[in-house]
Amino acid sequence: MRKGEPVLPTMDDILSAYERICPYIHRTPLMSSKFLSDAAGADILFKCENFQKAGAFKTRGALNAVLGLDRSAASNGIATHSSGNHGLALAYAASLRKIPCHVVMPRDATAAKRHAAEGYGAEIIECGPSASEREKCLDMVLAKTKAEFVHPFNDARVIAGQGTCGLELFNQAAGLDAVVAPIGGGGLVSGTCVAFSELAPCVEIYAAEPKNADDAFRSFRAGRIVADHSPRTIADGLRVPIKELTWRIIKAKLSDVLTVSEESIVDSMKIIWQRLKIVVEPSSAVALAAVLAHTELFRNKRVGIIITGGNVDLDFLPWKDG
Amino acid sequence: MRKGEPVLPTMDDILSAYERICPYIHRTPLMSSKFLSDAAGADILFKCENFQKAGAFKTRGALNAVLGLDRSAASNGIATHSSGNHGLALAYAASLRKIPCHVVMPRDATAAKRHAAEGYGAEIIECGPSASEREKCLDMVLAKTKAEFVHPFNDARVIAGQGTCGLELFNQAAGLDAVVAPIGGGGLVSGTCVAFSELAPCVEIYAAEPKNADDAFRSFRAGRIVADHSPRTIADGLRVPIKELTWRIIKAKLSDVLTVSEESIVDSMKIIWQRLKIVVEPSSAVALAAVLAHTELFRNKRVGIIITGGNVDLDFLPWKDG
Repeated sequence: MRKGEPVLPTMDDILSAYERICPYIHRTPLMSSKFLSDAAGADILFKCENFQKAGAFKTRGALNAVLGLDRSAASNGIATHSSGNHGLALAYAASLRKIPCHVVMPRDATAAKRHAAEGYGAEIIECGPSASEREKCLDMVLAKTKAEFVHPFNDARVIAGQGTCGLELFNQAAGLDAVVAPIGGGGLVSGTCVAFSELAPCVEIYAAEPKNADDAFRSFRAGRIVADHSPRTIADGLRVPIKELTWRIIKAKLSDVLTVSEESIVDSMKIIWQRLKIVVEPSSAVALAAVLAHTELFRNKRVGIIITGGNVDLDFLPWKDG
Repeated sequence: MRKGEPVLPTMDDILSAYERICPYIHRTPLMSSKFLSDAAGADILFKCENFQKAGAFKTRGALNAVLGLDRSAASNGIATHSSGNHGLALAYAASLRKIPCHVVMPRDATAAKRHAAEGYGAEIIECGPSASEREKCLDMVLAKTKAEFVHPFNDARVIAGQGTCGLELFNQAAGLDAVVAPIGGGGLVSGTCVAFSELAPCVEIYAAEPKNADDAFRSFRAGRIVADHSPRTIADGLRVPIKELTWRIIKAKLSDVLTVSEESIVDSMKIIWQRLKIVVEPSSAVALAAVLAHTELFRNKRVGIIITGGNVDLDFLPWKDG
């Protein structure tokens, strides 16, 4: 490692994370649908993190960060900015440790996620929608509370925690050829890359991304981080851009980024509800949409798809209001 | 048995049914939610038949009837009347045996169920909404095709098949105090009664019924079958009345019938989607609604709730349009 370079999480970090968080998370099931496998011409296994505690994979990373804090660091509580699942996950983790949790959330965040975070006892601090407003607001919260900041994804503890999802998937599904996971900030994808590059380096890891928020796609092509400007996508969990830590892992280990249209995200979300009978949020549907849009890549292969979460506002479903 | 009395299904019939259908059904999982158990003050386990083949428990009874037919009886195919899941289940069973399937369905049946039955290759024959129109239509189909009639519930083969759900629940959940299942025609409830009365006679079996279609409740109070007149309930699977066979079992073995309001059905359906992250149809929510409305009956008990199915039209959800 060159001086000044950030420390990237390793397989050992993922294994330590798994030991730490295991008593507090669900080993979420794999599901499959003959209809969907036939549609893709592939053997698809869905890793159902919508059934995870607090409704999304984010609980893994949040728990790893929070449970790993020593007593002194934890005493002032934790803080973050999040439009949804990371805030909810951190609220859950803080409630387990009985420490304060402060979540800076844009005013337009999904009501379902906000209320669930409050249900775990978190304090929600509303901010404007821009990145600068959010950061200013978070700085104020940190200055006032001295809380420990846990970034939603650009944090080695969080990436190692999300990597436990890949570790579980590897243990549950023998003989995978590929794994496809949605990408926003890249915590899940980079954690999955670290896990599989050690456990089964032949398995190809693909990131699936909305065309309307395709910073990872453009970054991967350019070989450097290319920022999004106010992405607009129904997949609200994927509007955030990749950052330094996740980018370094993705650049080195990812097979490719596959982009999908908004329409195909909504179609895939609906078909998952209809066929798997599970409630998933739009971001979760992006990976299936990518597999269905790139059947040539996956034909006759055994493909793991990570369903990232199920926290959706049932009063505003995209096939009614989108 | 007195002469002329119908033959009721026994535990042996359920065990034979299980052996027959086991390769073709899912052993559906149990799920739980700390939130919902806390809300009920009970330890609730949900038996998730929404994940069953063809999306509902009905597949058990339909498969038992269809797979049990000898070649000659099966050669003309099968027929039934059904507004939904039984028709779909029978279509699935017929597709496995590669025999014709004719389903008489009211014109106002859920589009999702109709399309799914057609997807399995069934012929749908539309009829008017009244019982007499339906029966006239079915008689014509039977006369024309010589198909074997498989009644949705008033059929010992079907009741024994549904009883396999109770058998599985017993094997999956140790130490149950009570089981609550929705009641329409009573196939599931009577099959569950037969299974538990043999396997664990101390377990109390409750039927949950919409107030707006409370023929089972009134029959149980009166000690004889009291018919409904055009019941109107969001729980479309529960509009049918109990009949001779199911009534005889229910009368002898059921603990009680609990009725619930339409509003509580919709609320329970929504809370199941939100908390368990699973897609269930309105009929499925009736049992949870009954437990939440009668917490005094279930406090501190271990309660199995049968989630009956997940075939719902996502374009017409009751909390948007009801």
